[in-house]
Amino acid sequence: MAKLVIWIDFDPSGSTLSPSMIRLLEAIHKHGTIRRAAAESGMSYRKAWLLLQQTQKTFKGPVVNAGAGGHAGGGTQLTDLGVEVLTLYRAAVKHSSVAAQGNLETLTKLVRHDAPPRRTQRS
Amino acid sequence: MAKLVIWIDFDPSGSTLSPSMIRLLEAIHKHGTIRRAAAESGMSYRKAWLLLQQTQKTFKGPVVNAGAGGHAGGGTQLTDLGVEVLTLYRAAVKHSSVAAQGNLETLTKLVRHDAPPRRTQRS
Repeated sequence: MAKLVIWIDFDPSGSTLSPSMIRLLEAIHKHGTIRRAAAESGMSYRKAWLLLQQTQKTFKGPVVNAGAGGHAGGGTQLTDLGVEVLTLYRAAVKHSSVAAQGNLETLTKLVRHDAPPRRTQRS
Repeated sequence: MAKLVIWIDFDPSGSTLSPSMIRLLEAIHKHGTIRRAAAESGMSYRKAWLLLQQTQKTFKGPVVNAGAGGHAGGGTQLTDLGVEVLTLYRAAVKHSSVAAQGNLETLTKLVRHDAPPRRTQRS
């Protein structure tokens, strides 16, 4: 079945909430560290860290709280704001998918299903 | 106001309908040639041509018909299938935007509006 992949552009700030930001927040929420979240998301620690900084700057407050680091462990948790962003994004995708379902079903019937997988660059 | 930017992934074929494919189809519909459509979309003729080939392969039939080329002009028009794809995609975006409006309004209130524009790579 067809699936919507949704970016949210915020005008006039020009900032964006992307699927990869959301996947990273979800993985941090699940694993509690950026390192493990990066590994699950198939990105380098550096890329995950940069993406997280970009996400932090998009919102009015921090979306994650880093605990004390070092050998003791530390770890990273979503803040209430981070959880709210995740919840609202998921709700937007769910509502959109329901609303567009009829159009997606019709579009799917027009698609060639013997074509090899193709990926256009996006992040 | 926040805006949804929607990709449609077709499983299990792995093919994708992207916003840039849609912008190109819209520009061809408007201008009647790939060259002018490419110029309006800010892409090279080669990039537009490749993107169009990718779009052609995604669907069961051609989405554009090329007329006789050469000095006589020729030109490129959307086929009925191409128009249908465009119409269904626009309907999916419209229905999604209405359905997600409440979530988008709440998310927008959480966004920092003094942040400089940032662009994450996507096409």
